[in-house]
Amino acid sequence: MAITVVGSVAFDTVETPAGRYERQLAGAATYFSLAASFFTDVRVIAVVGEDFGPEQEAVFKARNIDTTGIERAAGKSFFWEGSYLENLNEAKTHNTELNVFATFNPQIPDSYRDSEFLFLANIDPVLQRRVREQMPHVKLVAGDTMNYWIKDHKPALLEVLKGLDLLLINDTEARMLAGNDNLLQAARAVMTMGPRMLVVKHGEYGATLFERAAPEAHRTECFRAPALPLEEVVDPTGAGDSFAGGFFGYLASQAELTPAVFRRAMFYGSVMGSFACERFGTERLQQLTRAEIDERFKIFRELTHLD
Amino acid sequence: MAITVVGSVAFDTVETPAGRYERQLAGAATYFSLAASFFTDVRVIAVVGEDFGPEQEAVFKARNIDTTGIERAAGKSFFWEGSYLENLNEAKTHNTELNVFATFNPQIPDSYRDSEFLFLANIDPVLQRRVREQMPHVKLVAGDTMNYWIKDHKPALLEVLKGLDLLLINDTEARMLAGNDNLLQAARAVMTMGPRMLVVKHGEYGATLFERAAPEAHRTECFRAPALPLEEVVDPTGAGDSFAGGFFGYLASQAELTPAVFRRAMFYGSVMGSFACERFGTERLQQLTRAEIDERFKIFRELTHLD
Repeated sequence: MAITVVGSVAFDTVETPAGRYERQLAGAATYFSLAASFFTDVRVIAVVGEDFGPEQEAVFKARNIDTTGIERAAGKSFFWEGSYLENLNEAKTHNTELNVFATFNPQIPDSYRDSEFLFLANIDPVLQRRVREQMPHVKLVAGDTMNYWIKDHKPALLEVLKGLDLLLINDTEARMLAGNDNLLQAARAVMTMGPRMLVVKHGEYGATLFERAAPEAHRTECFRAPALPLEEVVDPTGAGDSFAGGFFGYLASQAELTPAVFRRAMFYGSVMGSFACERFGTERLQQLTRAEIDERFKIFRELTHLD
Repeated sequence: MAITVVGSVAFDTVETPAGRYERQLAGAATYFSLAASFFTDVRVIAVVGEDFGPEQEAVFKARNIDTTGIERAAGKSFFWEGSYLENLNEAKTHNTELNVFATFNPQIPDSYRDSEFLFLANIDPVLQRRVREQMPHVKLVAGDTMNYWIKDHKPALLEVLKGLDLLLINDTEARMLAGNDNLLQAARAVMTMGPRMLVVKHGEYGATLFERAAPEAHRTECFRAPALPLEEVVDPTGAGDSFAGGFFGYLASQAELTPAVFRRAMFYGSVMGSFACERFGTERLQQLTRAEIDERFKIFRELTHLD
């Protein structure tokens, strides 16, 4: 089943201990759709500027990603500059230019309207909500956000949360959103805000899926997927978005959303996040094959498997 | 098979967000032996002062732990005071008094000499080495250490590492010991210092077992055990030592040390660490039953299990 994703298609300048690149294709929706494209059909909604040319378009086309919903506007694409020189787990932002995103009003192409899965990648919650409202009948809707929206745009974000089945955020964001340092208590609090499921990403330690249990169960269901200790983390940019793409892409590829399917989706998310870190920018996702993904899935399974 | 453990038997004063206790029985060897005692026979080597009375002795006796090797000396027992008010993952030390440990010269009782497993809990590496040298024929020897010894007593510590099969430390310690921020590279470096296996504890995210592979394998074997998101972390003191006790205790209870046994040992370690955090000090370990341990082992297994 097809996924529609809304989020940034952007250019990044990034410096890591392994090197530096300038104004390369990036953005949450780009990482997400590349990762998800190995599992199912993906349709993107975004806005780009005049700097987005055939070279960038070709990256999406090579993975059969539908770009009908990528609007071209006068001006420059969203731009982010950051570094991970002191800490590979946390980016230091040097510059953010919204550019064409500042006045973006997302429109859903008619050809996207039968998408059964909707992903609201990390952008202004006002835009996330507008897309959600235009696609009321999807089977599953998930979203991401970040500390900036939690801190300074909470009312708008809370409106988005009401319309989500599942939220994917990291540890710090979960604790900040709930105002509670205990992860389990924070997860429960977030799941009273709308989403009945929450994926908390722990960076190099994997991720946890929480699910609201029936009130009489007196417990919260949870499941942990590991991350693989990597030989070298070249560039962590987009790892979380790639996790989301692998996770959601796998879900969308399955006929039924059983608990076992959600568990495997967590592992596929972790697999795609691990690939994203191995090269600069989207390079590794562009070169990847499904056989490599399945091979690494087996390694991840072995990583925590008891006979 | 019996385990001999050398380490601190001490008194702690601890403050956590959940409360405070004063001068309660604690110490690495205490937590370790309580946790290991659910799996096998445990024999302790330590020194205590005149403040160690029948009340403390009874805690060991209730779990059938052999205290023949706990020497009584004039003066006070080792004392530590710390808090976890800002960060439950890292203790802030307010006071450390070595007291009777300052002049300790560990002696191995004859009745301990047939122990097949030896654990060198976190103490001065000079003492760890002395015990190791007196027990050259054990089947498996593992040890723990901490940032203080890595930073200021590295030559003595490196001598200890040469005599270990397995080292158990946390993330920060592994990176500090290897001088490398990448966990996999750090693990490989540590495994050139002596131990052929390394367990790195990740606090609330579980732990990873690394094993030196044959040179022709071109890879490092690794295995991850999760930790359970806890309702409330009352007191993290001793969680790492309890992990070690569960891990090593389970190994010692098994006839053969196969890879599958090491994997299950990692899960039992994680289980015992999770119990330790649920009450102040050693309280939870004192009340625990084997049935509760096996029940939680099942929950941990489900936590990462794919069909």
